[in-house]
Amino acid sequence: MNNSLKVDLYELTMAAGYFQNKVEARATFELSCHTMPENRSFLVACGLEQVVEYILNLRFSDEDIAFLKSLPVFRDVKSGFFDYLKSFRFTGDVWAMPEGEIFFAREPVIQVEAPIIEAQILETYLLSVINVESLVAAKAARVVAAACADGVARGVIDFGSRRAHGPEAGVLAARASYLAGCAGTSNVDAGKRFGVPVYGTMAHSWVEAFDSEEESFEKYHAAFPEGIILLVDTYDTLRSVRKIVQMPLREKLKGVRLDSGDLKVLSRKVRKILDGAGLPHVKILASGNLNEYKIAELVKAKAPVDLFGVGTDMVTSRDCPALDLTYKLVQVREKDGTVKYKSKTSPRKETIPGKKQVFRQYDGKGMFKKDAIGLSTEKAPAGARALLQPVILAGKLTGKLPLLEEARQAAAAKLAQLPPGFRDIDKRRTGKVGYTAAISQLRIKKRA
Amino acid sequence: MNNSLKVDLYELTMAAGYFQNKVEARATFELSCHTMPENRSFLVACGLEQVVEYILNLRFSDEDIAFLKSLPVFRDVKSGFFDYLKSFRFTGDVWAMPEGEIFFAREPVIQVEAPIIEAQILETYLLSVINVESLVAAKAARVVAAACADGVARGVIDFGSRRAHGPEAGVLAARASYLAGCAGTSNVDAGKRFGVPVYGTMAHSWVEAFDSEEESFEKYHAAFPEGIILLVDTYDTLRSVRKIVQMPLREKLKGVRLDSGDLKVLSRKVRKILDGAGLPHVKILASGNLNEYKIAELVKAKAPVDLFGVGTDMVTSRDCPALDLTYKLVQVREKDGTVKYKSKTSPRKETIPGKKQVFRQYDGKGMFKKDAIGLSTEKAPAGARALLQPVILAGKLTGKLPLLEEARQAAAAKLAQLPPGFRDIDKRRTGKVGYTAAISQLRIKKRA
Repeated sequence: MNNSLKVDLYELTMAAGYFQNKVEARATFELSCHTMPENRSFLVACGLEQVVEYILNLRFSDEDIAFLKSLPVFRDVKSGFFDYLKSFRFTGDVWAMPEGEIFFAREPVIQVEAPIIEAQILETYLLSVINVESLVAAKAARVVAAACADGVARGVIDFGSRRAHGPEAGVLAARASYLAGCAGTSNVDAGKRFGVPVYGTMAHSWVEAFDSEEESFEKYHAAFPEGIILLVDTYDTLRSVRKIVQMPLREKLKGVRLDSGDLKVLSRKVRKILDGAGLPHVKILASGNLNEYKIAELVKAKAPVDLFGVGTDMVTSRDCPALDLTYKLVQVREKDGTVKYKSKTSPRKETIPGKKQVFRQYDGKGMFKKDAIGLSTEKAPAGARALLQPVILAGKLTGKLPLLEEARQAAAAKLAQLPPGFRDIDKRRTGKVGYTAAISQLRIKKRA
Repeated sequence: MNNSLKVDLYELTMAAGYFQNKVEARATFELSCHTMPENRSFLVACGLEQVVEYILNLRFSDEDIAFLKSLPVFRDVKSGFFDYLKSFRFTGDVWAMPEGEIFFAREPVIQVEAPIIEAQILETYLLSVINVESLVAAKAARVVAAACADGVARGVIDFGSRRAHGPEAGVLAARASYLAGCAGTSNVDAGKRFGVPVYGTMAHSWVEAFDSEEESFEKYHAAFPEGIILLVDTYDTLRSVRKIVQMPLREKLKGVRLDSGDLKVLSRKVRKILDGAGLPHVKILASGNLNEYKIAELVKAKAPVDLFGVGTDMVTSRDCPALDLTYKLVQVREKDGTVKYKSKTSPRKETIPGKKQVFRQYDGKGMFKKDAIGLSTEKAPAGARALLQPVILAGKLTGKLPLLEEARQAAAAKLAQLPPGFRDIDKRRTGKVGYTAAISQLRIKKRA
């Protein structure tokens, strides 16, 4: 797919402006979340793989360039700029937190250092990819935490594609929710492109398409003889389950899905019917407008649900459908080597100058203690870990990116390092984040 | 782009199930919004062009099929099904409300009638496309209404791409917001693909990249000599504007953009400086976390803002980031011509059987009065308009779809037919929607 024009026009007018004015300084931009969402204790870095793919493959086609030339705003821009675009290749460096890393407000998640045109052009695309994936990953981590709050590992499956912001957003959300701990997704493309396990059985329409519910179940079993999950709420959940346990297909029944009604009450009654019929191994999958709060209630009430299917609230991160991400210029290195620190001073939108690194410190038990944002040239404090790692240097990938499966394991490990309270969905306990003395001095100097 | 696997797995397991069981009935599915969002008085149909493109081009590649075959769930599915997928073409009918039409809960926006496999497979993709575009269109209509609440036509520009749910969602949102009345977008791809007017000038990074703000403005002017809009809040808005009005480039100044601070106070002070300097024609563009409520306040306070740039809240429809859209089987026609009405009876998720039509009635002044949902076979009541129109018949487009520009004009005309109150963002006045006697009888019969 051609992604080169999925940018705000000003990235390209500024590019033309830098080109025409021969501004060739090397710029450092940092992508971070300006403020933490009110209802999130932590965020999960996600989307780097898509960012890297975009950066390494960014090209402007003849068609793209012809379109740009047709815009009145480029009327006076000389052809040299369009020749530049035609031969565009990213030649800079990208440092980033690996996918699955936990981050907080103000911490750079991605850092781009490149000739200023190259670094600038990436802004819109990077922001929107990291926005949707990190957003959904943070939400999914909460949902998964709620599903396992009592220590029992219950799977959460992403069922949200139909309520995503378009078909591609559904795929990205499926990837992000799997990275953050979901067991899989209903989205087939996420399986094909990213290896996310895919799940799914039947819709209500299947059950309705036949003359009776029994017939619909039998016909499904005929097509899929080995292990079936049946949707039981099309007409009357309990009556449906009572019928199923008397049908021959009960031998191959793996699960039943409840998609409406009082899930607490129904799951208990259904469990009782299944157990009474000698089917204690048959799982109960619950779905229907679920989120972390409703799941927490079900878990607290000991509702016998084994798997949760979660849609709209997770795929849109409904209670926080956007992150306050920004991509800000923090320093410029002139041709002669002079470094100039950059920041804006707009009220409540002030930015912190200087190319940074995030140093994470742990307590004696290896649990997250606090972060210090320092200059990239500073040494990590004893025992601290530097979170930003080189991913692209001089336009080349530094090594193979982790597989999604590896990133998922990394996320699980990082989440496990968060002290109690962080994963409690009803509390807000945000990580302690400070600045090193070197950064603080830079801010004071800059302000003066 | 290959979109065929951007579906929930169950669309394809059901397809396999229908194929194996030789279920060849002709099914009618209807896409509608089950309940109105709490904070919306109306919805705007949007996304049909993308739906039609998907349906007419839906093909399963060898790679898609190889992936499906690799999934354990398809282990026992015979090769005939995969041959069927390989030669898949949509052969059915699609009726739909034209883009820009106003709709309310329970009204079919799209109706698909086709062999059941074909109609079923479309579900996920259609839902997610109509979800994001109709969602953003409804939100944008509110934002535009707020910007023009006093009768002055102030432009609203979509600046939301960076906060969209991924790069493609940004393009779809730009299209939807333009259809609903915005003046344009910052998203270049929306310009190229859909002809949406694109706007943009400079980011704070441009201003910071130079040693002084004046230099940054001069250099921008050098690259774009004809008409510039300058971003004035990087350091100090008023000081910036006072400098600009004394610079030679003032001759070419078209506008200034305020992106932070108290926009009511700043816009007045900036207007005063501009007017005092003999620049009454220079426009003020305001942006920065705006939505319909903040814009309404500015308009009410007579803040001298000429253009609004709106981002996150509009592109994500932040106060309602998903519609409660469903795609439901309503009837099946067997090979022998027998029609069977279909509905589910799950508590609070009951559906209404029968292939429908929506009849819209108007008052003497041509304003929206009420809707009646009837059977597709019913005659429209006198003076009523049938909203569902044939778009695809037997797999072929019935005619050229309207251009986006035409759909935008249609939306403006339909919005103008809504009586007072509907477009008031602080009220909730939903359209009166009833059922015809024929539908009501069908429900009763079905329930019995």
